[in-house]
Amino acid sequence: ALTKVMDNGGFCDDNYQSGSSDDELVDISDVTVDFSEDVPPLDRDYSAGRTHALQKILTFYIRHTLMDLLDDTVPGIGTYEDFNTIDWVREKSKDRDRHREITNKSKQSTVALLFSISDAFSGWLLMLFIGLMSGALAGGIDIAAHWMTDLKEGVCLNGFWFNHEHCCWASNETTFQERDKCPQWKSWAELMVGVSEGPGLYVLNYFMYMCWALLFAFLTVILVRAFAPYACGSGIPEIKTILSGFIIRGYLGKWTLIIKTITLVLAVSSGLSLGKEGPLVHVACCCANILCHFFTKYRRNEAKRREVLSAASAVGVSVAFGAPIGGVLFSLEEVSYYFPLKTLWRSFFAALVAAFTLRSINPFGNSRLVLFYVEFHTPWHLLELIPFVLLGIFGGLWGAFFIRANIAWCRLRKNTCLGHYPVLEVVVVTLLTAFLAFPIEYTRMSSSELISELFNDCGLLDSSKLCGYTSNSGSASGSVNATAANGLGARLAGPDLYTAMWQLALALLLKMIFTVVTFGMKVPSGLFIPSMLAIRHHEGDIFRGWCSPGADCITPGLYAMVGAAACLGGVTRMTVSLVVIMFELTGGLEYIVPLMAAAMTSKWVADALGRESIYEAHIRLNGYPFLEAKEEFRHKTLATDVMRPRRGDPLLSVLTESGMTVEEVERLITDTTYSGFPVVISQQSPRLVGFVLRRDLVISLENARRNQEGVVSMSPILFTECDPPMSPSAPPAVKLHSILDLSPFTVTVHTPMEIVVDIFRKLGLRQCLVIQNGRLLGIITKKDILKHMAQMANRDPDSILFN
Amino acid sequence: ALTKVMDNGGFCDDNYQSGSSDDELVDISDVTVDFSEDVPPLDRDYSAGRTHALQKILTFYIRHTLMDLLDDTVPGIGTYEDFNTIDWVREKSKDRDRHREITNKSKQSTVALLFSISDAFSGWLLMLFIGLMSGALAGGIDIAAHWMTDLKEGVCLNGFWFNHEHCCWASNETTFQERDKCPQWKSWAELMVGVSEGPGLYVLNYFMYMCWALLFAFLTVILVRAFAPYACGSGIPEIKTILSGFIIRGYLGKWTLIIKTITLVLAVSSGLSLGKEGPLVHVACCCANILCHFFTKYRRNEAKRREVLSAASAVGVSVAFGAPIGGVLFSLEEVSYYFPLKTLWRSFFAALVAAFTLRSINPFGNSRLVLFYVEFHTPWHLLELIPFVLLGIFGGLWGAFFIRANIAWCRLRKNTCLGHYPVLEVVVVTLLTAFLAFPIEYTRMSSSELISELFNDCGLLDSSKLCGYTSNSGSASGSVNATAANGLGARLAGPDLYTAMWQLALALLLKMIFTVVTFGMKVPSGLFIPSMLAIRHHEGDIFRGWCSPGADCITPGLYAMVGAAACLGGVTRMTVSLVVIMFELTGGLEYIVPLMAAAMTSKWVADALGRESIYEAHIRLNGYPFLEAKEEFRHKTLATDVMRPRRGDPLLSVLTESGMTVEEVERLITDTTYSGFPVVISQQSPRLVGFVLRRDLVISLENARRNQEGVVSMSPILFTECDPPMSPSAPPAVKLHSILDLSPFTVTVHTPMEIVVDIFRKLGLRQCLVIQNGRLLGIITKKDILKHMAQMANRDPDSILFN
Repeated sequence: ALTKVMDNGGFCDDNYQSGSSDDELVDISDVTVDFSEDVPPLDRDYSAGRTHALQKILTFYIRHTLMDLLDDTVPGIGTYEDFNTIDWVREKSKDRDRHREITNKSKQSTVALLFSISDAFSGWLLMLFIGLMSGALAGGIDIAAHWMTDLKEGVCLNGFWFNHEHCCWASNETTFQERDKCPQWKSWAELMVGVSEGPGLYVLNYFMYMCWALLFAFLTVILVRAFAPYACGSGIPEIKTILSGFIIRGYLGKWTLIIKTITLVLAVSSGLSLGKEGPLVHVACCCANILCHFFTKYRRNEAKRREVLSAASAVGVSVAFGAPIGGVLFSLEEVSYYFPLKTLWRSFFAALVAAFTLRSINPFGNSRLVLFYVEFHTPWHLLELIPFVLLGIFGGLWGAFFIRANIAWCRLRKNTCLGHYPVLEVVVVTLLTAFLAFPIEYTRMSSSELISELFNDCGLLDSSKLCGYTSNSGSASGSVNATAANGLGARLAGPDLYTAMWQLALALLLKMIFTVVTFGMKVPSGLFIPSMLAIRHHEGDIFRGWCSPGADCITPGLYAMVGAAACLGGVTRMTVSLVVIMFELTGGLEYIVPLMAAAMTSKWVADALGRESIYEAHIRLNGYPFLEAKEEFRHKTLATDVMRPRRGDPLLSVLTESGMTVEEVERLITDTTYSGFPVVISQQSPRLVGFVLRRDLVISLENARRNQEGVVSMSPILFTECDPPMSPSAPPAVKLHSILDLSPFTVTVHTPMEIVVDIFRKLGLRQCLVIQNGRLLGIITKKDILKHMAQMANRDPDSILFN
Repeated sequence: ALTKVMDNGGFCDDNYQSGSSDDELVDISDVTVDFSEDVPPLDRDYSAGRTHALQKILTFYIRHTLMDLLDDTVPGIGTYEDFNTIDWVREKSKDRDRHREITNKSKQSTVALLFSISDAFSGWLLMLFIGLMSGALAGGIDIAAHWMTDLKEGVCLNGFWFNHEHCCWASNETTFQERDKCPQWKSWAELMVGVSEGPGLYVLNYFMYMCWALLFAFLTVILVRAFAPYACGSGIPEIKTILSGFIIRGYLGKWTLIIKTITLVLAVSSGLSLGKEGPLVHVACCCANILCHFFTKYRRNEAKRREVLSAASAVGVSVAFGAPIGGVLFSLEEVSYYFPLKTLWRSFFAALVAAFTLRSINPFGNSRLVLFYVEFHTPWHLLELIPFVLLGIFGGLWGAFFIRANIAWCRLRKNTCLGHYPVLEVVVVTLLTAFLAFPIEYTRMSSSELISELFNDCGLLDSSKLCGYTSNSGSASGSVNATAANGLGARLAGPDLYTAMWQLALALLLKMIFTVVTFGMKVPSGLFIPSMLAIRHHEGDIFRGWCSPGADCITPGLYAMVGAAACLGGVTRMTVSLVVIMFELTGGLEYIVPLMAAAMTSKWVADALGRESIYEAHIRLNGYPFLEAKEEFRHKTLATDVMRPRRGDPLLSVLTESGMTVEEVERLITDTTYSGFPVVISQQSPRLVGFVLRRDLVISLENARRNQEGVVSMSPILFTECDPPMSPSAPPAVKLHSILDLSPFTVTVHTPMEIVVDIFRKLGLRQCLVIQNGRLLGIITKKDILKHMAQMANRDPDSILFN
C-alpha cells in the first residue's frame, strides 16, 4: 500500500502518472494494511531501516524499565491507518494514562522513580537534540549551497572545495578593494580556453552556467522521484495538515530527510527561483520525527509527537531566518493546530539551541545566522509611512496575484498532459531560468546574496552598483553614508545607478514569473526568499524628491525590507510572526512600526482579494482534511443538516451492545466503509452506549478468531461489561467491552454548526454523534464538516479527498 | 447590591469589616438585582456616570444604524449576575448571530454597508484608542511618580514642579561631573534651617522623608477605601479570573481607573516596596473596558470584551517594560484564557501604539520607554552559565519562599484581628519602610532607579559607588569600561565598593521582607519591580577570581539582569514572555541564552517546591472560580463521581417541556438556588430536551406576568415549539421556547474527568449535563469541577466561593 501511494506521487499537487487518479487516493483506506505491525504510522519507512546502535541501547533501557507494562494487549489497537485523521482526545487520554501509570510506579522502586524523572525530562532532551541536529543540518545546507552556487561560475585553483569568497580570502594577493577578484578563482571559460580575457569567454561562461544549473536541477528531480517523492515542494501545507491530526506515512521519514537535504542544496544551487525556508521547516520536522523514535513517550503517541513537530517547525524558521522568537510565533500562528503552552517554552528552547548551533557553525563567516542580517540606525520619518503603506498595498496585490497564478498553474499541470512529464518540466524551467538569469547581475547571484545586497546600506567598501548614487546626489544616501562617501572620494556615477534600477526591475519581473511557475514543481522549494525580492527600485523615484528638505534621509535598505515584509505577508498572510522575524533581522525596535504598517496593509489588501494564504490554497488543492482554525464558520446551519444519514438515506449502521453475532458484525464491516460504528442498546431503542472504531473492531475480531478457542461465525458479540445469562451449549461470546469508547462526543440535532465546528477544532475530534431527546440519529465526521464547509463556500464538496 | 459588595472590600484577600464574612460573598447571588437595567455587567459603575459628548454622538450613530434591530425582546435576557461565570459558547454564538445579521443587512443598503465596514474596523479603532490612552496614562504616572519621589527629599527653587534631575538640568551652573548637585535643589532641612551644612540636617531630612512617605501612604489607603475598594492590590489575579469568564462588576470601571492611577503614583512615591507593573496592567484593562462602551460590538458581548481585555493586558506590560512583543507573549502565556489568533495581531498593534505614545511623552528624558533600559555589548563566556544557573536556583528558591511567606501573611491578616485595621497596617509598614530605607542609599532611591543603576555598566560619567572598583582592580570592570576608567584617572577606591556591597546585601534583605508584607495590602501594588532587585552583590565574590585569565571580563549589569529574571521567574513562573521582556530591555540576541538558563532553572526549582505562581496562589486564596489552563488534571475519576445529585441526594431538579404551571416553576425557583435547570420530556422519561438559565427564566416569567394578558399561577409553561391541543377555557400558556438552549453540552457518566475538564477549559463552559444511555442523570458545573479538583489536591473544597 505504501509503495502504491508513494509511486502515484499525488503529493506535489498533481498526479504525474497516467495510471493514478483522484479516485485511487480516495479509496486508499480500502487497501489492505498489515495490522500485525507494531510501528507508529508517521515513520514506518524509518523503522524499516537498520537500527542504530544508540537506538538499541536506549530502547533496551526503556524496554526493560517500563515499556512492557504499557504494551497493548492486542497489537495494533489504538493505531491509525495511513491517510486518516487521529482522535486527539483519545491520544491525550492515552498519554495521561501513561503518565499516571509511571507516577504510580515511581513510588514503588528507585528504578521506576529514575525512569519517571528521565521521562519527565525526555521532552527537554528531545528538544535539545532536535535543535542541535537541525542547526547542524541547516549549517551544512548553507555552506554546500553557497559553494555549489559559485561552482556554476568557476572553480578555485587552491582547492575545489573553496567557494569564491573563501578562495579569494585565502589568497593574500588581493587588495581590500577588489575582494571579488583574485587569480586563484578561475571561471570555467578561463580554465578551458586558458586566457583570462577574450570575446568568447562570456558565451562559454554562459554555457557552463546553464550546464551546471541543468545538471543540478536534473539530479534534484531524479533523486526526488527515485527515492523520496515526499521530498518535493515546500512541505509546509503538508506539515500543517499533519499537525492538525492527519497521518501521512513516510512524509517525515528518514529517506525524506536525506533526499530533501541533498536536493535542497542542489535546487538552490541550480538557480531556480526558490527559497530554502519552507524546506528547512520540513527538514526540521523530519529530524524531530526521527528523534521521537528514541523516546517511548513520543513514539507511541500521535498527539505528543505532534507537539514535538510544532516545536520543530519553530526550529526550522529559527535556523532559516536566525529568528528564534519569530520562529516560535510562526509555529504558533501559522503552523500549529494544538499548541499547549508547555510547547511554547520548549519550542523556544529548541529554536534557541538550533540558532546557536548554526551560529557556531558560522556558515556565512559574519557571526550572523543569515546572510542578510542588517543593522540600521537611521530613524525614519512619519511621512515615510505613506510609501510603506503603498509597499504594503503592492505586497498585498502581489500576494493575491501570486496565489491565484500559482494555483492556476498547478491546476493546469494537474489536469493537462503537462503533468505527465515532470522531469522535462523541471529541465525546461531550469534552462529558461538560467538562460534569462545569467545576463542580469541580480538574477545571476543567489537570492540570499541579492537580498543581502538590497537590505544593506551602502558602506565604505561597497562596490555594488546600487551605491552608485552616493557621489552623484550628495546627501541622497543618508547621513550614515554621507561621510563614508566623502571619505572614499570618487565613486561610480549616476548612470550605473540607473542601469542597476532597470536591471532590478527586470529581475523583479523575472523572479515573479519564475516563482509562480517553480513553486509546486517536483523539487524542494520554498517561497519565502523569492517573495522577499521586493520592489527596491521603487524607492529610486521617491527619494530623489524627498531628500532636499531634511538633513537625515531615507535608508534604502529599509524600503527593501519593508517591501519584502509586505510581499511575504501578502503571500503567507503571516502577521505578528512576520514582523517579529523582520525585527529580529534588524534588531531595532524602531522599525517595527513601518514593518507593521506594511504587513497590516498587505494582509488587508490580500484578504480582500481572497481569504486563503498560499499554504491553505495548496491544502485545498490537494484535498487534505484540514479544518482551518482561524476562519470562523459563519453559516446558520444545524447539526441535523450535516449529519449522516441524510433524509432518505438508509438508516445509520449501528451495532447493538448484545445480540449480534461475529458473522453479522463481519458482514457489516465488509458491506460498509465507515471508520467506526456507534453501539446502541438495541435497534428498536437506539439509545447510545458507545462508539467503536472499525480498525479496532477488525483487529479484535481477527485476534479472537485466531487466539480465542471456540469462536465461530455464530458466536455472540458482547459490548456489555457483565455477561448476560447464556445457555451453556452456545458458542463462547467475544467480549469487546475493552475496545468500546464509552464516552463518545454527542451533540443534539439543534446544535448550530458553528458550535459543532468549534468543538471539532478545539478538541480535535474525529467524529461526533448526533442525538435527539436521547435517541441516536446520526453521525458527523470531520470529513462531513469539511464537505459541508466546501458546499457553503460554493466549492466542490468532493474536493476533500481523505478521511 | 453593588454598594454592599464594594463596601465589604472582600477583594484584597481579606475582609476588613467585621460585618462582612465569606458567607456573604457566597450568597451574593441572592441579593436582588434590578433586571430592568440594560447595562453590561463589568462596568455598571461607569455607565452610572454622566455621558460624555463623544459617547453621545457615537451611540447616536450606532443606535440609528443598527442597534435597535439587535435588541433583545426582553431586556436583561442574556446578561449575567455579579460574581457569576459567563458561558463562552453562548456569548460567541451571540456575536456570530450579530455578525451574520450585519453581513446580511449590508447587502441591502449603503448605510448598512458602511456600518458593516465600520463594525469590522471598530476592533482596530478600539485598539488604537486603548494604546493611546494607556500610553498617555503610563507616561503621566511615570512623570508624577518621579517628581513625587524626589519631593520626599527636597524641592526645586526654580519651580516646585521640577524633579531633582530637571531642576539641575535647568540650571546652567553645574559642571558635567556633578549633575546631581546644584544650588537650586534644596533638601527640606536646608530650606527650613537655612544653612546648607550642619549636624542636624541629616536628622531633619530623615524626618521629612518619613513624613512625606507617611502622607503619601495615608492618602493612598484613604482614597482607595473611600472611592474604589477594587483599586487595591496588583489586580492581575482578578484580571486573570475576569478573563477566564468571571464577572466582577466595577472592577474595571471608571472610579477604579481614576483612583488606581492616583494612588499608584502615591504608593510608588511613598517608598513602599512595590512596583507599578501589575497595576499598570489593571489600569490598561480599565481603559479598555471603558473604551469598550463606545462600541456596541464589545459593550454587549462579554466574550468579545474579554478579547479586548486580553489585548489590554499586553498593553499594560508593554508600557511597564517598554516591551511590546514581551507584553503580547505575557498576555498569551500568563493572563489570557481565550486567546484567538486574531487577538494576537490586535494585541501587538495596541501594544506598539502604547509603546510609541509613551515614547513620545518621553518620561525619562532618555528616549527609552523604561528607566532601566540598557545596551550591553560584551559577550559572555560559556563558563558563566554556572553562575547564571546558580542565580536561577536562588531565584527559584526566593520565588517559592516569597509565595509561601506572602500567602501566610495574607492568611494571618484575614484570620486575625490584624485585618480590622487596614489603615493602621499601611501606616506602620510605611513608617518602618521609610525608617529603615533612608539610611541606606540603595533603598532610599526608587526601585526603578536602583534597577537602572544595577543594570548599567559603569561608564565614564558614573558617580555610583558600585563603579568604585574600576580603578581598584584594573581589568575587573570589563573591556568596555577599562578604557573609560583609564581615561578618567583617579576614581573612588576599593573600600567604597565594599560599602556598596554590604549596603546592597542589606537592601536586598530589607526589600525582600518588605515586599512579602506589602504585596496584598490595601494599596495598589505590583511585584515585578521589587522582584527584580536581585542579588547583584553575589557577583562581587565571583568575578574577582575570574578575571585574571581572560582579557574580556564579566558584565556586572548582566548578572543583575539575569538575577532579576530568575527572581521574577520564580515568583510569577513566566517563561518565554519573561525572556522576551528581558531581551527587549537589552536588545541583544546574545543574552537570551543566559536569561533562558536562569529562567528555566528558576521555574524548575520553584515548581519543585510548589506548583502555583503568586497569582494563582492569590486566586486560590480568594476562592475565585478559576480553571487553570496549564495544569493537567491527572486523576482517574469519572463524570459520575463529580456530577450532582450525588448518590443519596434528592433527585435532580428538572423542568418538563410541557405540563408544568407557572406556580410550579416559580416554586422550584424559590426553593432552589441553582443557576439553571435542564428541561426533559417528562419526569418519567428523563430524556434531555434542553437547558434553561435561572436568570432568563425569572426575567421571562416576570415579564409574562407583567405584559402578557391572562397569565395566572395556573397557566401552563411550554418549552415546546408547537402548541399541544388545549381546552379553550384553560389560561393562556407561557411560551418559553425562545429562552431554551436546545444544544446543551452533554457527556456520558463514563467520561473521564480529565476529558470533562478539558472540555470546560477549551470551550469555556459553565455547566454540562451528564447522561447515560440517553437518560439525564445529573449536572456538572464549573464550581463542581473546581471543588472536585480542590478535593483531589487535599484542599478544602469549600474554598471555592463563587459561581
